[in-house]
Amino acid sequence: MGRITVRRPVVRVTVGETIESARRPDTLIAEEPLEIRVNGTPLAVTMRTPGDDIHLAHGFLLTEGIIRGLDDVTTARYCAGSVVDDESGQPQNTFNVLDIKLAPDVPPPAVDPSRNFYTTSSCGVCGKASIDAIRQQIRWPVADDPVTFDPAVLVSLPDRLREHQKAFNSTGGLHAAALCSAEGEILYAAEDVGRHNAVDKVLGAALLADAIPAPGTVLVVSGRSSFELTQKALMAGVPALVAVSAPSSLSVELATEAGQTLLGFTRPPSFNVYAGAHRLGL
Amino acid sequence: MGRITVRRPVVRVTVGETIESARRPDTLIAEEPLEIRVNGTPLAVTMRTPGDDIHLAHGFLLTEGIIRGLDDVTTARYCAGSVVDDESGQPQNTFNVLDIKLAPDVPPPAVDPSRNFYTTSSCGVCGKASIDAIRQQIRWPVADDPVTFDPAVLVSLPDRLREHQKAFNSTGGLHAAALCSAEGEILYAAEDVGRHNAVDKVLGAALLADAIPAPGTVLVVSGRSSFELTQKALMAGVPALVAVSAPSSLSVELATEAGQTLLGFTRPPSFNVYAGAHRLGL
Repeated sequence: MGRITVRRPVVRVTVGETIESARRPDTLIAEEPLEIRVNGTPLAVTMRTPGDDIHLAHGFLLTEGIIRGLDDVTTARYCAGSVVDDESGQPQNTFNVLDIKLAPDVPPPAVDPSRNFYTTSSCGVCGKASIDAIRQQIRWPVADDPVTFDPAVLVSLPDRLREHQKAFNSTGGLHAAALCSAEGEILYAAEDVGRHNAVDKVLGAALLADAIPAPGTVLVVSGRSSFELTQKALMAGVPALVAVSAPSSLSVELATEAGQTLLGFTRPPSFNVYAGAHRLGL
Repeated sequence: MGRITVRRPVVRVTVGETIESARRPDTLIAEEPLEIRVNGTPLAVTMRTPGDDIHLAHGFLLTEGIIRGLDDVTTARYCAGSVVDDESGQPQNTFNVLDIKLAPDVPPPAVDPSRNFYTTSSCGVCGKASIDAIRQQIRWPVADDPVTFDPAVLVSLPDRLREHQKAFNSTGGLHAAALCSAEGEILYAAEDVGRHNAVDKVLGAALLADAIPAPGTVLVVSGRSSFELTQKALMAGVPALVAVSAPSSLSVELATEAGQTLLGFTRPPSFNVYAGAHRLGL
């Protein structure tokens, strides 16, 4: 299937006495939803890198206690007809929905209605459909946010965030996130063992201060940017996301479609701009 | 609440011409489940670092599209009586269950029965209850696995894993995992944008080769070890987990209770042993 990595153009910016920028290709890690079905019933959607999907689904069912060995599974196959091809009008296999048929004596997973997980907005069909689902949910579109950012401020944000990372210094085990003004002031910061939790803590603090939507702000995260983190920033009306590490393909696609500015590999004196470079005045 | 970090004794091992080991205290990042309820109905359980829970719950509801501002929430409070204290017999607040009451005009989240997420084994009440839930699910206890490990082999595993990380080298955005023999041979390896997916791919490959349970093996992961990763290794009957980065408090507790060997900060020439040091012959 060969979709493990994706090539995209990026703008590489280096902040010195002058600000240099150059367009060049970059390789991104592919991120796509996989919907795992059991006996035809959807069980879970996970955002994964395509490839070894049969392994992934079997490992998931094993570690969730649903199967214990090969004999517990009859067949595993991709579901056809998940999307309709625009040109031909024919159903097309996206290779993103996998159905596992259990052996007759294996009880299917119990879905206890009192303890259901809320379905995330990601959709098992394909990345494009997940993006469409998010777009329908957005209350405060960021595409028209007229804010501009100084590259020298943006490149300094990870260091400013690190000053707030108290627990990381003692444990080495924490993700951090902060909401900052366009001038680089940290408005809200949080740490957590989970990257999405750190972002939720920051955005929840802003909401409790009645500061949502948050036009003119930047969300900084200590790690990578995924579809989920980009989604969270968009749901709060935040027009820019700065990540210290690599972005996934789907986070770049979502940011591009939504008109959000997305930076990755933000490590002084440089960073990559994956989307929304127009806000940097380059 | 002050539960952001936890102190635990560890064995620090340095592999040189001789193998040196010393017992010393270490600071771990706290990991505990938080159950978020809406109008009294459980919505999601997230493994988080305690603190700023009110922020976390509001941010989660905002970014999932359930609320859009302060006016949408009437009250947020911890639920009392979640566990019964062993000594007093009285209900005790674990501060791990939070109920958000929505304003009357805000529709509660729709739980579409055809698209439920499978409930993970983690339990919103407290870490201890989550561990008990896993213990009941384990089919192949690892405590009695008589395998022993050579510290010189264990310390070399992250470098061996890195040789398999093809996509990481081009993207910098991937987690990797591998199942290895006690002699350090890589049996199955995988990369993914999600840490849990990389582990599921590896364990699923083992299952498809009819190699589950997997006594005498080691699971190596490129990042941190969390409750979830420890759980996955235990569900596959893997007696040892080697992480390149820090473990969470709950992953150490789970490994200790289950008799699993757990290493963290595995960076030549040293590593920390958080549980199951008896298998290293120190």
